[in-house]
Amino acid sequence: MNASIVNGRMKPLILITNDDSIEAPGLHRLVEIAAEFGDVIAVAPKYPQSGQSSAISVEKPLRINQTDDYSGARMFTVSGTPVDCVKLALNAIVPRHPDLLLSGINHGSNSGNAITYSGTMGAVLEGCTNGIVSVGFSLCHHSIKADFSLSAPLVRDIVARVLANGLPDYTALNVNIPARVVPAGSKVCRAARGHWSEEFVRYTDPAGKPFYMLSGRFVNEEPDMTDTDEYWLSQGYVSVVPVTPDQTAARYIESLSQTFTI
Amino acid sequence: MNASIVNGRMKPLILITNDDSIEAPGLHRLVEIAAEFGDVIAVAPKYPQSGQSSAISVEKPLRINQTDDYSGARMFTVSGTPVDCVKLALNAIVPRHPDLLLSGINHGSNSGNAITYSGTMGAVLEGCTNGIVSVGFSLCHHSIKADFSLSAPLVRDIVARVLANGLPDYTALNVNIPARVVPAGSKVCRAARGHWSEEFVRYTDPAGKPFYMLSGRFVNEEPDMTDTDEYWLSQGYVSVVPVTPDQTAARYIESLSQTFTI
Repeated sequence: MNASIVNGRMKPLILITNDDSIEAPGLHRLVEIAAEFGDVIAVAPKYPQSGQSSAISVEKPLRINQTDDYSGARMFTVSGTPVDCVKLALNAIVPRHPDLLLSGINHGSNSGNAITYSGTMGAVLEGCTNGIVSVGFSLCHHSIKADFSLSAPLVRDIVARVLANGLPDYTALNVNIPARVVPAGSKVCRAARGHWSEEFVRYTDPAGKPFYMLSGRFVNEEPDMTDTDEYWLSQGYVSVVPVTPDQTAARYIESLSQTFTI
Repeated sequence: MNASIVNGRMKPLILITNDDSIEAPGLHRLVEIAAEFGDVIAVAPKYPQSGQSSAISVEKPLRINQTDDYSGARMFTVSGTPVDCVKLALNAIVPRHPDLLLSGINHGSNSGNAITYSGTMGAVLEGCTNGIVSVGFSLCHHSIKADFSLSAPLVRDIVARVLANGLPDYTALNVNIPARVVPAGSKVCRAARGHWSEEFVRYTDPAGKPFYMLSGRFVNEEPDMTDTDEYWLSQGYVSVVPVTPDQTAARYIESLSQTFTI
């Protein structure tokens, strides 16, 4: 019997990637969960790609390497960004169009505006642009030793519901998981708006010249709003934010037409 | 008299960046135009950053170098991405909050979905997130020798209108300019939806191992729609798309709550 056929039905093909690299424990936890639902192929960056957003490798050769299977999944590395991983997976690795793309589980939060910089979510938006139901998972804990077991049942439940129900056209999910607690449940909400302050630490090199390292503190500009991901995470819930690759601010097209039609 | 005060009024401070690097002719054309309207500081990547999206440099030292003034503007390089340039400019270079951020003029289009990957637009979204009125300009011609003179009057007009009218909250503009024609005018519209096909060329290295280079062809999924940037560009118009850093698909929050509230 072909491994991908169960009870006469094709098992779903699940493509998994992340931005923390093939070595990340969060990726392995996600592969284990996904393997309960379908045939899994993981295509992850060879090296960590945090903060790579939707970056693509222009004018740079990319290589694919297959590594040891894990939990029944075929595992590949790509020498590029998370979006490179998705593009190369679709063009050169998967045997057919995946039914689901999962990205993560990221070591660190991707809530609020942080989605903009997130390689985890860059991969999700790329899947969505290619017509694949896509979900990103992030645990609000940066440690490589973070404990994913507390949230595993909820991740499993969300994967099951996505497979059963699909998602609206051109829409993906950004799922963030609170750290160090058993989640109280999950809430569908919007991304909190914020910005970063004190973004750099200034150093002086041995030659007396300055250099800067990115640091920064997220400033939630809507701390009193109870419909945001930041709010629900602070209450111990998993936040589920529907996101779209379409960045057009459609509601302003008409009013701006008066000023910018030349 | 302080150079930034004219007729008793403060001249606007205009921050300029791009993703093609400090060397790009498109950046210099934009500095020349902006210098007609205010005090200009350019902070551009030291090396080309096409396709860098909203990527940030994590765990990497960044350096700032001041180069020769150009057209009355102070010019700086940053050894990172376009978003790094904006963040470092705001944290370590500009004397006060800029009144306007301009990015470009990019050598190559950033229309349709391509905004997702665009370093030019990554910088614009970063400006917008930091509360700065921000506009990205891209010429639909990749050559480093592209002729920007045909579109200069329209770019100047858009800069004047943005300075006079501002933009709605949390909204920036993505301006694309058709190649090799005097623009017929400008139209405010939405980004066409599409995807890329045939995205890689496969090579074999001297050792017999395969590698891949990004290539690809944009497939407009809405070729019959006349309200998109791709349509108006094909008609010889400058496209003006309002964009927002907020990627929440707000219209689906209610319906998805039924499935994903656990």
